[in-house]
Amino acid sequence: MSSTLSLLEEEFNFVGKRVPKYDAAQKVAGAAKYMIDLKLPGMLYGKILRSRYPHARILSIDKTKAEQLPGVIAVITAKDVPRIRFGFMKDNMPLKEEFVLSCRDEIAAVAAVDEETAERAIELIEVEYEPLPALFDPLKAMENGAPILHRELKSNVVDLGLNFKKGDVSEPFRSSEYVVVEGTYRIGFITHTALGTMGALAHYEPSGMLNIWANTQSPFLYQRELAQALGIDPSRVRVIQPSIGGSFGRGMDLYPPDIIASLLSMKTLRPVKILFRRDEDLANSPTRQPAIFKIKTAATMEGKLVARSVEAILDVGPYISWGAFDARVMMATATGQYVVPNVEFTSKHVYTNNPYSGTMRGAGNPQINFAIETQMDILSEKLGIDPVEFRIMNANRPGYVTPQGMRITTCSMEETLRIAEREIGWRGRHKAGKSVGIGFASLFHVAGGARVYRSDGCGTIVKLDDFGTVTVITGASEIGTGSDTAITQIVAEELSIPLSKVRLVNDDASVRPWDVGIHASRMTFVGGNSALMAARKAKEKLLRLASEYLQERYEDLRIKDGMIFSKRNSSKSVEYDKLLRRAHFREGGDVIVASHFYDPPNQMADEKTQSGNISATYGFGTQAVLVEVDEETGKVTVKKVVAVHDAGRIINPLGAEGQVQGGIVMAMSWALTEELILDGGLVVNNSLADYKLPTAAEIPDIKVIFVGEPDPEGPFGAKGVGEHGCIPTAAAIANAIYDAVCVRLYELPMTPERVLKAIKNSKAS
Amino acid sequence: MSSTLSLLEEEFNFVGKRVPKYDAAQKVAGAAKYMIDLKLPGMLYGKILRSRYPHARILSIDKTKAEQLPGVIAVITAKDVPRIRFGFMKDNMPLKEEFVLSCRDEIAAVAAVDEETAERAIELIEVEYEPLPALFDPLKAMENGAPILHRELKSNVVDLGLNFKKGDVSEPFRSSEYVVVEGTYRIGFITHTALGTMGALAHYEPSGMLNIWANTQSPFLYQRELAQALGIDPSRVRVIQPSIGGSFGRGMDLYPPDIIASLLSMKTLRPVKILFRRDEDLANSPTRQPAIFKIKTAATMEGKLVARSVEAILDVGPYISWGAFDARVMMATATGQYVVPNVEFTSKHVYTNNPYSGTMRGAGNPQINFAIETQMDILSEKLGIDPVEFRIMNANRPGYVTPQGMRITTCSMEETLRIAEREIGWRGRHKAGKSVGIGFASLFHVAGGARVYRSDGCGTIVKLDDFGTVTVITGASEIGTGSDTAITQIVAEELSIPLSKVRLVNDDASVRPWDVGIHASRMTFVGGNSALMAARKAKEKLLRLASEYLQERYEDLRIKDGMIFSKRNSSKSVEYDKLLRRAHFREGGDVIVASHFYDPPNQMADEKTQSGNISATYGFGTQAVLVEVDEETGKVTVKKVVAVHDAGRIINPLGAEGQVQGGIVMAMSWALTEELILDGGLVVNNSLADYKLPTAAEIPDIKVIFVGEPDPEGPFGAKGVGEHGCIPTAAAIANAIYDAVCVRLYELPMTPERVLKAIKNSKAS
Repeated sequence: MSSTLSLLEEEFNFVGKRVPKYDAAQKVAGAAKYMIDLKLPGMLYGKILRSRYPHARILSIDKTKAEQLPGVIAVITAKDVPRIRFGFMKDNMPLKEEFVLSCRDEIAAVAAVDEETAERAIELIEVEYEPLPALFDPLKAMENGAPILHRELKSNVVDLGLNFKKGDVSEPFRSSEYVVVEGTYRIGFITHTALGTMGALAHYEPSGMLNIWANTQSPFLYQRELAQALGIDPSRVRVIQPSIGGSFGRGMDLYPPDIIASLLSMKTLRPVKILFRRDEDLANSPTRQPAIFKIKTAATMEGKLVARSVEAILDVGPYISWGAFDARVMMATATGQYVVPNVEFTSKHVYTNNPYSGTMRGAGNPQINFAIETQMDILSEKLGIDPVEFRIMNANRPGYVTPQGMRITTCSMEETLRIAEREIGWRGRHKAGKSVGIGFASLFHVAGGARVYRSDGCGTIVKLDDFGTVTVITGASEIGTGSDTAITQIVAEELSIPLSKVRLVNDDASVRPWDVGIHASRMTFVGGNSALMAARKAKEKLLRLASEYLQERYEDLRIKDGMIFSKRNSSKSVEYDKLLRRAHFREGGDVIVASHFYDPPNQMADEKTQSGNISATYGFGTQAVLVEVDEETGKVTVKKVVAVHDAGRIINPLGAEGQVQGGIVMAMSWALTEELILDGGLVVNNSLADYKLPTAAEIPDIKVIFVGEPDPEGPFGAKGVGEHGCIPTAAAIANAIYDAVCVRLYELPMTPERVLKAIKNSKAS
Repeated sequence: MSSTLSLLEEEFNFVGKRVPKYDAAQKVAGAAKYMIDLKLPGMLYGKILRSRYPHARILSIDKTKAEQLPGVIAVITAKDVPRIRFGFMKDNMPLKEEFVLSCRDEIAAVAAVDEETAERAIELIEVEYEPLPALFDPLKAMENGAPILHRELKSNVVDLGLNFKKGDVSEPFRSSEYVVVEGTYRIGFITHTALGTMGALAHYEPSGMLNIWANTQSPFLYQRELAQALGIDPSRVRVIQPSIGGSFGRGMDLYPPDIIASLLSMKTLRPVKILFRRDEDLANSPTRQPAIFKIKTAATMEGKLVARSVEAILDVGPYISWGAFDARVMMATATGQYVVPNVEFTSKHVYTNNPYSGTMRGAGNPQINFAIETQMDILSEKLGIDPVEFRIMNANRPGYVTPQGMRITTCSMEETLRIAEREIGWRGRHKAGKSVGIGFASLFHVAGGARVYRSDGCGTIVKLDDFGTVTVITGASEIGTGSDTAITQIVAEELSIPLSKVRLVNDDASVRPWDVGIHASRMTFVGGNSALMAARKAKEKLLRLASEYLQERYEDLRIKDGMIFSKRNSSKSVEYDKLLRRAHFREGGDVIVASHFYDPPNQMADEKTQSGNISATYGFGTQAVLVEVDEETGKVTVKKVVAVHDAGRIINPLGAEGQVQGGIVMAMSWALTEELILDGGLVVNNSLADYKLPTAAEIPDIKVIFVGEPDPEGPFGAKGVGEHGCIPTAAAIANAIYDAVCVRLYELPMTPERVLKAIKNSKAS
């Protein structure tokens, strides 16, 4: 990577500049095509019949009346389709045959000429059930004697082996030399609430090709999983991503609607779209994995952390998703966010009859961070040490290797704390004013890919044409984070050509080289590096052509603003597009195509020891939050957030700031108001009137500051940042609430009711 | 190319096999998407107002009423759009402002919510004209004093310099030692009559990208020309080819409908489709260039050709197209089809007020072949030599270089004649029976690309995925000829994997590497070679992986039926897709992407001398035709055609036979019945009831035989053949008519009226 670093001394044209999103014009004008905009000739509309009970035996299904309804083209149940298990643990079926395990379980589906007909047909399907006792509490589901939801298993607890131990925690916890704190933290149900609701459009063609427009984050894994779920050759599945209106992690898994749309299309040979209405989306989309953490931490009287143990219990609902990996991310933070020599982490995934969960932005880190960082606050107070100083004392630093083997390279954790402290105006505990408080929380997260799959790579093909257009066919997916903008900046920078000359192709996966997907804040880092290196290969070819044309040595050539010139004799120059045409339009001509597959230098965690340097580099940050608490109502108002993040060199400050701001707002919502309310396993607040997201008026003053040095492995020194903004916010708010009104909250969301109750309990005790 | 030839000894899996078309299932099931099937949300329908006169001055245009019609979104005239000249000679404008030069000249255009509204709006546009005298006869248009159609020029005759001379023809023509024949031949108006009518769908997006779905044969030239015609950066034009229902040469040029659809979309920011109805297609599409040939040939008494002169006068209508190059193809046949030491060719392109012409399958060769090959028949009879023997005496042979410098490599011309003679049952002149006759005609045509543009190349990107799918992103366009099927066979053969694992991407030009277009029978040869060499690079990478995995030397490895094994130890083997996954799914993993740009070793003709080896190899053939002539009515019935073609190794006999058969039927139609009838420059028979194409019942017995050896430059030895079938048919029919009823026809089509008139004249004289 020496040639990247050599560029750091230069003036950049695009890197570090505030560049509007690549697709901004299209989106602002309403011209971007989202799932809702897609319409194919002859397209049918699919609807799904879901279970009436959270847990039941299906006695019979009668679809006769539905089939007779005019406009209905197909009605399918499990009996009409291949019985193939799918999902992260192959514990799910697209249509359930004997047992339903949640209120959202899919029983039958209809394809009809319009949405209304499909809905009426769904109502005409008659199902007889035998209701069975349901489990909504993971602790109860773990008890001996609890009904077993998956009959083929022996327990509702799935041990995925995501446990880790280094050193010995028991001795420090017993020792009177140390200060020990412990607590139990609870995270409730929320869902991703992306602007674009869930759905898919499947078109199975007579040729045997299945074309599927999907809101997936991982088109290449999706291709394989969908093919397997349908029992067809993955070579016959073509995945196309339309514009995606946010995804936030739920696009990592394959869910039943996509399989059902495909099955309906295979049956009808017509395009079939299933797209959730907002109420369906709130009720039937995956959730962030609800969690219970039991955490215990010991520190010396001087404030050095000595031991920490974390027990995580995760409610997965009836089916396990990529959310299973959240436990591994929780483990990394529990054991690695601060220097702690003795650590222990255990996790249990528990089946219940609740809605199934998925993974969500931060992949477990926001949840564990809430617990760890509020406990850090408690511990620092117990030790009588300033919370910022306490964190600095125990912070990661370059060269440190965490107990799991994660190698810290660039790291400005201390700087993020010092700047956050200064910018928020911290003067010490309980000094912000009456009912006003300041809280801090830091974060540690992957920022150089995350090898959670056997490949963490991304491929790019770069094609230069006679007009100087650089077409970048990238494996990288765009779900609204702005990674494609960063990629175009990187390519334009490397080739030193106008940004307008870079065209990105990232919709049709069948023409794109492989990529594992957009998750773990990896896209700009991994996709950016892949694009950078492909562009570099193209540049080399371009400079070879220039060397021949200008009769100058390759080493003496430079490209700047689309001109290639000799460093020794700047009067010798040529426009890059002219050179392309000259190489092309001659006998024995050639055009420039280059490709690169970048697989970051990281490791897959060892399955037994859970050790391995999972990311090629790591990101750090601290958020300081100023809140005001209404002691009469318990309402918490976030007045200001200072977010200081180390994400290496920022490719696009406009985009990166937006990512951090969006993360903070999302986390604030989750921390204070947002919660799926369940009644007997059924989501009852499935409207945006009842599911409380913040409005523009509730957004606090947010100041985003980037610190840190260019990362030697990152493209032009960049590290990932997409998820980082949402990680420490909840803990910082909780710590600020404590700073304001001296009550600790152990459960999210911190609604006015819970805050008020805590205040009352505090006053009572 | 030695490694290709080394394969010739091997058993082929796919090459030489009768493989159904790649898109057969889609097309048979009606699932292929042609222009008529395309529909975008918010799409508008465009219609064009054309001139009422073949030649007139436009005095005024009033579009007020049209604009007021509900449902009309835009009405444009020349005043509303940039004045940019376009076309092969930049002699055309999308909308005419001051003068109209033909009845199809475009004056205004409408975009409306449906087709009917657009048509009604067109009728509401009021145009005042001053009619001007019109020129319909190119000979009259050449006269001094004829009105000049393009006011800025001095003459209606455009001399493109497409003239050639070698040796001296005047001496042989004067000498009494030689037999000299001369004649004048006339070719009327026909049009391509593709199943898919002409049209385009343009979608200009707020981002500034113009997406255009076009029936073009040359997406990359089209991209540049369309952008220039619109005055925008070609980088902002994305050309997508839907399934194309035939094109036959008319897709080489950019015509006004595509520009007008784009202008309407730019004005409305909505998708706009202009698609001709059948009557519009017949009336307003380009025509095969009508021609007058004056030909003179001298031979020794022994039958050796000594001299030939050809004067070609081509009626281009008011605008010049790629059809201009037809003169160069005519030149090649006139001077190179037989060994003639002294040759002279001149051509004149004449502007008239007739419909404008384009290029059409064979690019001038069918027309000149009709003249040359009927004159060969006349000459042989005059010499008292059998027409087959006469052709053999003067035939091209390997190693010959034509006067223009075309280097004959593989050539089985003599064999095609001998086999045709035998298969048709030739027993000498006038021995076929009463009113029954046999005729022969041979052909000479490019078969290894044709460098009529500065690049004759084609690029391919090959991408291998974890499922063993080989995605071939090819520059090659498919217009129904089957070249894409051949390309998939070539790739599957080279990699020795199942055909079903090869997926072709040739729709969206923005992701494809450059190609000059599908014309000159070049696609299987050039696109096939490009794909072959890209696949070979991929195979090399695959074998390197196998070498590492199997611990065998690279040289000792072979791939067969998807297995890579050691030639020395066949028990050591691995599936190719397993190898791909193994290389990918590991730390530091990689995927296989390879690309190649193949530019054939041919030359662009020198502009002054018209010399150069324009094609990397050439094709040859002979057709023998058996006809029956009804002497009462003049009706000619083709009973049998034997078509013997040298096209090297045939990649797909099913497809190649279909191409030859289709060519014969097309040429038979042109020879006997097909003609656009004009009245004052207006096409009056613009319906398929009046424009006479053959029905299935009229198709003769056709026997296709391929001869010749594998060509060393062709992919697996293949040469081009797409146009060849249509070249000699008309002459063979004319010669057979003479053989049957002793009358010579000098004009096409040889309608019953013309044949009867010739018979009556013959009897009268």
